[in-house]
Amino acid sequence: MAEQERAIRTRRTILFAAAKVFQEHGYQAATISQILAEAGVTKGALYFHFPSKEDLAQEVLLSQNQDFHVPDHPSKIQEIVDIVLLHTYRLQTDPLVQAAVRLSLDELAHGLNRSDSFMRWDNMLQERLEKAQAQGELLPHITPAETAGILVGAYTGIQSLSQALTSHQDLATRVTALLRHLLPSITVPSVLASVDMSENRILKLHTDTTAQTR
Amino acid sequence: MAEQERAIRTRRTILFAAAKVFQEHGYQAATISQILAEAGVTKGALYFHFPSKEDLAQEVLLSQNQDFHVPDHPSKIQEIVDIVLLHTYRLQTDPLVQAAVRLSLDELAHGLNRSDSFMRWDNMLQERLEKAQAQGELLPHITPAETAGILVGAYTGIQSLSQALTSHQDLATRVTALLRHLLPSITVPSVLASVDMSENRILKLHTDTTAQTR
Repeated sequence: MAEQERAIRTRRTILFAAAKVFQEHGYQAATISQILAEAGVTKGALYFHFPSKEDLAQEVLLSQNQDFHVPDHPSKIQEIVDIVLLHTYRLQTDPLVQAAVRLSLDELAHGLNRSDSFMRWDNMLQERLEKAQAQGELLPHITPAETAGILVGAYTGIQSLSQALTSHQDLATRVTALLRHLLPSITVPSVLASVDMSENRILKLHTDTTAQTR
Repeated sequence: MAEQERAIRTRRTILFAAAKVFQEHGYQAATISQILAEAGVTKGALYFHFPSKEDLAQEVLLSQNQDFHVPDHPSKIQEIVDIVLLHTYRLQTDPLVQAAVRLSLDELAHGLNRSDSFMRWDNMLQERLEKAQAQGELLPHITPAETAGILVGAYTGIQSLSQALTSHQDLATRVTALLRHLLPSITVPSVLASVDMSENRILKLHTDTTAQTR
């Protein structure tokens, strides 16, 4: 195994270990010793990749937006739906994304920049909303900046509720219901009629993006 | 001061102290000793009112629904809006309600029944939605149970986002934007036209309910 490849694997092992420890103990109580024990690497290896607990947490936070691509679509509203559905799939299956979302909601994580992770989602959605507006997909009174904030906030809470009540088992059902409750207030009816926001689309998106990555 | 009155005051002092300690340290890390120090009461007094840390937390959780009354209104949609706005006012001004909401979102609060606090809001809204449906205020495809879940979930996240980005400074603005994004998908237009979901209504509600309590 080439040295660079080994370094990448070690980095990934440390990140997953950190995600698990943050998930179990919260940011404040988590320690580097716990992460070392979980990862089974040396202190030197850990500090080579991540100078501090904060750096580790910021990298975990960032993971929810990394390798995140939805296919181009003529309807920017469909792209927004696809972002929401793909994130839902990852949140149900990827421990790193689960830890990232939990950290972004950890009110005790003082010293951690939690705003950035919300702002990354906000920007990603606002950009699509502006394009949607330019091509006439939005109702006339909609302000992309305000609507992006509503989408990010509402999604965040739907996942908190689904986590608290069913450990994310019913997340996809709640998320598609949220889309059905928000999009009619945002989108012109002719666009709405051809948007696919069904749970089935999640699997299709996952298959497509996996194929694309290969 | 009568003995009963003194007991009620002590109980309240302990509850506010517990709220502060849970807010600062989270449920898992909070200790009875910290709460005793904060409250300035004896161990005996604390255990007389609350047998355990869990009991204290459950009582804090419950506080968000206690003394919570919105005025009767011919439109049940207006009552739903009023519930949302009054809770927003309390969340911005009452440390007990702030601690309650934080606890209900504390994923590390193992052993604490967090579902109940979501279900209380869910029931309060579902009941109004059913009445709204019976008197023709809802669009025909709406299912009160599903829509109640969306309202609770979306609100929860809007407050998380507002907390993370502005420490709840912009909560009222975000909440009224949420209502403008959800209600057109739920309510028949003729009802929607006469619903007051402005930020101004918050102060009116607060004044009315305070007067009623006196």
